[in-house]
Amino acid sequence: MGRRLGDVSAPARLAGPGEGIGRDELALAVRNHGLPLEALRHDVTPPGLHYVLTHYDIPYVPDGAGWTLTVDGAVRRPLRLTPADLRAFPQVTTRVTLECAGNGRALLTPRPVSQPWLVEAVGTADWTGVPLRLLLAEAGVARRAVDVAFTGADHGVERGVEQDYRRALPVAVATGRDPEVLVAYAMNGAPLPPQHGHPVRLIVPGWYGMAHVKWLRSVVVGDVPFTGFQNSVAYRLKRDSGDEGEPVTRIAPRALLVPPGFPDFMSRTRVVRPGPVTLEGRAWSGQGPVTAVEVTTDGGATWHPATLDPADDHPWAWRRWHTTWTAEPGSHVLAARATDAAGHTQPTTQNWNRGGFANNAIHPVPVLCLP
Amino acid sequence: MGRRLGDVSAPARLAGPGEGIGRDELALAVRNHGLPLEALRHDVTPPGLHYVLTHYDIPYVPDGAGWTLTVDGAVRRPLRLTPADLRAFPQVTTRVTLECAGNGRALLTPRPVSQPWLVEAVGTADWTGVPLRLLLAEAGVARRAVDVAFTGADHGVERGVEQDYRRALPVAVATGRDPEVLVAYAMNGAPLPPQHGHPVRLIVPGWYGMAHVKWLRSVVVGDVPFTGFQNSVAYRLKRDSGDEGEPVTRIAPRALLVPPGFPDFMSRTRVVRPGPVTLEGRAWSGQGPVTAVEVTTDGGATWHPATLDPADDHPWAWRRWHTTWTAEPGSHVLAARATDAAGHTQPTTQNWNRGGFANNAIHPVPVLCLP
Repeated sequence: MGRRLGDVSAPARLAGPGEGIGRDELALAVRNHGLPLEALRHDVTPPGLHYVLTHYDIPYVPDGAGWTLTVDGAVRRPLRLTPADLRAFPQVTTRVTLECAGNGRALLTPRPVSQPWLVEAVGTADWTGVPLRLLLAEAGVARRAVDVAFTGADHGVERGVEQDYRRALPVAVATGRDPEVLVAYAMNGAPLPPQHGHPVRLIVPGWYGMAHVKWLRSVVVGDVPFTGFQNSVAYRLKRDSGDEGEPVTRIAPRALLVPPGFPDFMSRTRVVRPGPVTLEGRAWSGQGPVTAVEVTTDGGATWHPATLDPADDHPWAWRRWHTTWTAEPGSHVLAARATDAAGHTQPTTQNWNRGGFANNAIHPVPVLCLP
Repeated sequence: MGRRLGDVSAPARLAGPGEGIGRDELALAVRNHGLPLEALRHDVTPPGLHYVLTHYDIPYVPDGAGWTLTVDGAVRRPLRLTPADLRAFPQVTTRVTLECAGNGRALLTPRPVSQPWLVEAVGTADWTGVPLRLLLAEAGVARRAVDVAFTGADHGVERGVEQDYRRALPVAVATGRDPEVLVAYAMNGAPLPPQHGHPVRLIVPGWYGMAHVKWLRSVVVGDVPFTGFQNSVAYRLKRDSGDEGEPVTRIAPRALLVPPGFPDFMSRTRVVRPGPVTLEGRAWSGQGPVTAVEVTTDGGATWHPATLDPADDHPWAWRRWHTTWTAEPGSHVLAARATDAAGHTQPTTQNWNRGGFANNAIHPVPVLCLP
């Protein structure tokens, strides 16, 4: 196993042609978990069904006692806040659909070796907390501020670099009102579960999961651009390992189906019987409200509009859609495709990058209709 | 994809030499999930960290409305009970450690192709419900009764057989007091989450997870031996596919460590620094109380007794253990080994069977101690 960090912490790599999922990828898959797609039926994802991705270990903070969140750096009045202090600020609840930036990674060719998501790294919750902009206003952000860095209590090694998980946002995003970033202490009306950041985490509506720092214990306002690992090395859209790449930011549009009928245990293939089948699902985008969902039942040859549920008061949450399909005996390939108000839609082919990020290719769902 | 059930629902198989985890196994791994091992620190597993294994889909029963549980077959007075009716019976809460029968499967050689657990398919919860023996007494079990069959609402196909998930227990177990089988409607003091059987499930303390039928809607007392798929075909200890095999029943002893130090993101290898390191974990057995846990820090060359927490009022739950290790720079392999009052302990080599069931081989934990 070796004697140095580099011996147990290798550079990122791509799987070879035909290479199956390895023990390392499996170890991530069994501890992190996705939303079982039938749970797309719930407006708000029940506890334990929301996707979870933790880079290192889930910190053990049994009752949040002794926890403090510091706000300092380029500010006039550094803050040191307990969870109780946070509750004294104005309280906001926002329904947010969260998706892992690596959702879809294991479907890519070649496959980036990392957490091997298929398409289930998503979930929607009501997050309650204090707007970050109020904390930053209380601290008094210096005019020269550029980035705001958020540090969690989760500690580990990644590609040879020992680190606490740390990500930064541009100061304009951190202090913005649309979306309004939250320092959250409750999920679906209850204290945060350990795996979702207990006692305090960041919520950045519309952004991929890597921005929503869990187990948040430090906010540092910086007057030079942040160059930490998770912003400068990981979570960038690169073709080659030497590329600088573009940062991963907001969620690209995606629609998924509640898998129709019933599954085979092992192949997970769906089985239906002939006749009308309600097709329903959810669609979301962090780049603008979803404006249309189309459905195909013939593998993409033809597309038909689905009915979107009316817009509600939750612009950062997924939206339900439905349509009816008359199933006939034989094999079918179903899929849904979302388009948002910014004009973004889902591609039919993969949008490959070396980290397997922000991939929102249309997801085919094979269905067998019995005679 | 084909036109018949058999085209999407294949017989069980073993992975070939060197065959990586396939797309089908991965689809199971990302929707079911294990206990992240650092969560072994919690006496009672918080919601969302307890392992989950669902054969088919999680049924959608948003508020339990309209749910009924029937008790019939070889009884004098068939029952039809709502969740509210169940709450009118005497209420019992039992702390139970639940483990999937397939825990450890993906570590076997050759690997049975199914849900690819490493060792994390475990969790402990406080389950509240009515003792099954009281319901059966109310119904009046016929003297000729042999087995009691439990049917859940989850529906699917498995190896070509379309079915509702259904398992039976011998009538002596179903009506027993030690363990006392529960028809449970609460987990950790709250209504069952969807993935744990909402609104009603079976709890069979000491038995592997396949016996704890979720989304329970039917109890049928039978006067001939039950021959359903999950008892007669699946969940049997077989060397060859043609064997009749022995049924999988109670949980074999196992001890696991809270992984010490911190992890590498991708390899999950543990890293510590020199000096005293607390080693702790949990140990359990469904075959008798755990009486000893031993720990090795040299890959099994020598074993030392760990300190068990005092016995408590939870004979069906795991027990905490701890010891101290003085880490020195270099590579180490740690492991723990449990022994129970029935004299069972954990083997050093795999106890292979074709389903990958009830495997409790000692689990090595590689640790790098930095200079």
